[in-house]
Amino acid sequence: MEDSWATLGVDLHLETRGAPGSDGSGAPRSGVRRGLTDALREAVRGGRLAPGTRLPSSRSLAADLGIARNTVADAYADLVAEGWLTARQGSGTRVAERDVPRPTGPARPQRAPGGLTHDLKPGSPDLSAFPRAEWLKAARRALAHAPNEAFGYSDRRGRIELRTALAAYLARARGVHADPDRVVVCAGFVGALRLLSGVLHDRLGVRDVAVDSYGLNFHWGIMREAGLRTRPLGLDELGTRTQELAASGAGAVQAALLTPSHQFPMGVPLSPSRRADVVDWARRAGGLILEDDYDGEFRYDRQPVGALQGLDPDRVVYLGTASKSLAPGLRLAWMVLPPDLAAEVAAHTDGGGWAVGALDQLTLAEFLTSGAYDRHVRASRLRYRRRRDQLVTALAERAPDVRPSGIAAGLHAVLRLPPGTEQSVIQAANWQRLGVQGLGWFRHPAAAGPHPDALVVGYGTPTERGWPGALEALCRVLP
Amino acid sequence: MEDSWATLGVDLHLETRGAPGSDGSGAPRSGVRRGLTDALREAVRGGRLAPGTRLPSSRSLAADLGIARNTVADAYADLVAEGWLTARQGSGTRVAERDVPRPTGPARPQRAPGGLTHDLKPGSPDLSAFPRAEWLKAARRALAHAPNEAFGYSDRRGRIELRTALAAYLARARGVHADPDRVVVCAGFVGALRLLSGVLHDRLGVRDVAVDSYGLNFHWGIMREAGLRTRPLGLDELGTRTQELAASGAGAVQAALLTPSHQFPMGVPLSPSRRADVVDWARRAGGLILEDDYDGEFRYDRQPVGALQGLDPDRVVYLGTASKSLAPGLRLAWMVLPPDLAAEVAAHTDGGGWAVGALDQLTLAEFLTSGAYDRHVRASRLRYRRRRDQLVTALAERAPDVRPSGIAAGLHAVLRLPPGTEQSVIQAANWQRLGVQGLGWFRHPAAAGPHPDALVVGYGTPTERGWPGALEALCRVLP
Repeated sequence: MEDSWATLGVDLHLETRGAPGSDGSGAPRSGVRRGLTDALREAVRGGRLAPGTRLPSSRSLAADLGIARNTVADAYADLVAEGWLTARQGSGTRVAERDVPRPTGPARPQRAPGGLTHDLKPGSPDLSAFPRAEWLKAARRALAHAPNEAFGYSDRRGRIELRTALAAYLARARGVHADPDRVVVCAGFVGALRLLSGVLHDRLGVRDVAVDSYGLNFHWGIMREAGLRTRPLGLDELGTRTQELAASGAGAVQAALLTPSHQFPMGVPLSPSRRADVVDWARRAGGLILEDDYDGEFRYDRQPVGALQGLDPDRVVYLGTASKSLAPGLRLAWMVLPPDLAAEVAAHTDGGGWAVGALDQLTLAEFLTSGAYDRHVRASRLRYRRRRDQLVTALAERAPDVRPSGIAAGLHAVLRLPPGTEQSVIQAANWQRLGVQGLGWFRHPAAAGPHPDALVVGYGTPTERGWPGALEALCRVLP
Repeated sequence: MEDSWATLGVDLHLETRGAPGSDGSGAPRSGVRRGLTDALREAVRGGRLAPGTRLPSSRSLAADLGIARNTVADAYADLVAEGWLTARQGSGTRVAERDVPRPTGPARPQRAPGGLTHDLKPGSPDLSAFPRAEWLKAARRALAHAPNEAFGYSDRRGRIELRTALAAYLARARGVHADPDRVVVCAGFVGALRLLSGVLHDRLGVRDVAVDSYGLNFHWGIMREAGLRTRPLGLDELGTRTQELAASGAGAVQAALLTPSHQFPMGVPLSPSRRADVVDWARRAGGLILEDDYDGEFRYDRQPVGALQGLDPDRVVYLGTASKSLAPGLRLAWMVLPPDLAAEVAAHTDGGGWAVGALDQLTLAEFLTSGAYDRHVRASRLRYRRRRDQLVTALAERAPDVRPSGIAAGLHAVLRLPPGTEQSVIQAANWQRLGVQGLGWFRHPAAAGPHPDALVVGYGTPTERGWPGALEALCRVLP
């Protein structure tokens, strides 16, 4: 029996020229063959042509479709090559015998973000304030001026344009002792920490890393995956008790990940004597300090505390990010490394510098050197400071039992609650669909010392329009 | 003795308003304090103020500079907090006693790229052909339409817009059975392979991965770092000998990394029977095939061979990249995963999807859906095919002993050389500052079988202007 095409019931849409993926010559035959191949492949995959089904002869199908016989023969050959069809002497062309995977449905629509009415979880700036027009302007200039080699495989530390711009900015704004040769651009703080953790463990033989008692669980997790143990230091009103490092015995801890300018999430800056303590420890013990300067640009009531790295660039790795100053979605972060570590880290940057797109790097370089970054940070600082002031005022009026702390800087505050109320406040917030996080969530499992009840409130997270409502919702759930 | 400021010999540049990093209020005092703090910090760091030096009293310095005494006191306090200065009752403010790191020099200028006159090393498209204007247009539209949440922490698989666009494109152009839910966007093929290797080893218990006899050493290195052993399969004129997988004993090899559409660097497509063999092996042995479809878009003399993944989406991970079709500098690649692996991989994407900037992802999505990607690929295909034809013609005329192979597709060709001449040809090329790579460079250390002499010539690498000269230089060094 010679089936005709129509009897197989396969819809066939033939694009006769310029079909996507065609060879661009505009030759009709190629487009027809392509369309026929695609239609047949879809028919087999979708199950409309069952395994074992014999296809019409190329002559018959060509006549049926009004196309050249060779075109059909070529399409059949393509699909035999791909394994969809089999061709055997004497038995013609058949659909191959194999389990045909079920077609999957169309993309599901994205879920609403968290289903929250208001979000005061810390960790994000106001995303509606991303400077879209300024960023596009910088991207245009970056694209216009990029050398061709910028589109190729680049320096593993990142583009020289960005490393130069960052070195100048960090020296000026954060007191970092920076040199473009020792800057490595990374895919977010997470990319930087992963890269560093690997080098610490595999190359420097580090096994234990001191960390703050409160911090982010997924940072500890990244170090754990690299084979490092995290050991929390104590915390008091002067910041993390870095003096415990010296007391911990020689060689016990060989690195420390700290947030010296603004302890996350507690908000205290590390006191001057403890800054000195930790640097002294690092020098004596041959230790390395990882300084997570996640929101160093945002200080409201006094000048920013300069980076700890400036005290000893040989012992401190400075880690910065655009996630708070611009947007986390850019996935742009950077390290400034001690001279003897820079080459070692650069050699391991598969997950780091090399991972960051060149155009984003060039755009950020342009953004920094044109002054757009400074302008954006300044405007953001004013906006967040206003919110901080409104938060403090509202608390004094409406929740006098709640003591805000860590409010001199950053995009979040810690609200100390009456003992034993943290869970009930979070529960109340959940009922109101208000996103907040309890302090307990940030506590290292091995941390010692008191367990204060508190909320960590990210006042930077809402949009400008959403902020008053978020503040109102917060006040309603506070005791 | 009360030193006056001038006697310390420190240059002091005071910005009185709008200084970068100032609080933006325009208040002169803040800018002045900032300038003073910076100048003092620089003076200490640069060694102009030696450790132990006593600073002028705040009253004296204020008078000297004509500024408020409190401003000086605040600047001193800042620098005490940062550890640059010390303040002790009765002994005044002094430069802290510590080893002052030597200032490092300015950024060194970048070295010329390789110092080559012509570059025919494989692995890069013509970077001068990057569609800058079209990309900027897509970026503008992407920035205009991006929802605010795009600037935040995103779905770890990558933006839904890009995953949807990729699923449609890959189904249409490469016969991939794709669903946005199973697409994961990665920072280059390297980011994808690193991520997959970790999941294979840590989650699936894989220890041995079959690979092509010829390939890229750093791909094998990434797998090795994850704890995987790579075991080369044999190679002949029909492609990689995938039938060896079944013969290797149950459970010996649990995954295979292959380049089925266009073996890299040999250029043979995997034969239909071997495509079937490898899928059958994966089904019977519970194995996983990693399909590296690095240049699937570029096929010249016949329609592209559809992706192997289409034969069994449950057993094949499809890996694609924009590195050949657009530019490696974008660091944009993607995987299409079997359903049972998609969630597992997404959970491990710190080095993968999450690492890719949202704006590049949205721009590529726009580039794909607007048809700009198809147009660019089509134009590139014509350009590279023309170069391929010129290469073949030139070889026939000027180096008849050299047999080109692997020329039906891609951006490179393998030029078979008379036995024993590979090293001398590479040497001759080096003298001419012509970048080429010998086939031996791509050989797996454990590969068996013959060791043919050949060059791997990346005819896609030069610019259009540079191509004729590169071809001429190549012909001069061939036997």
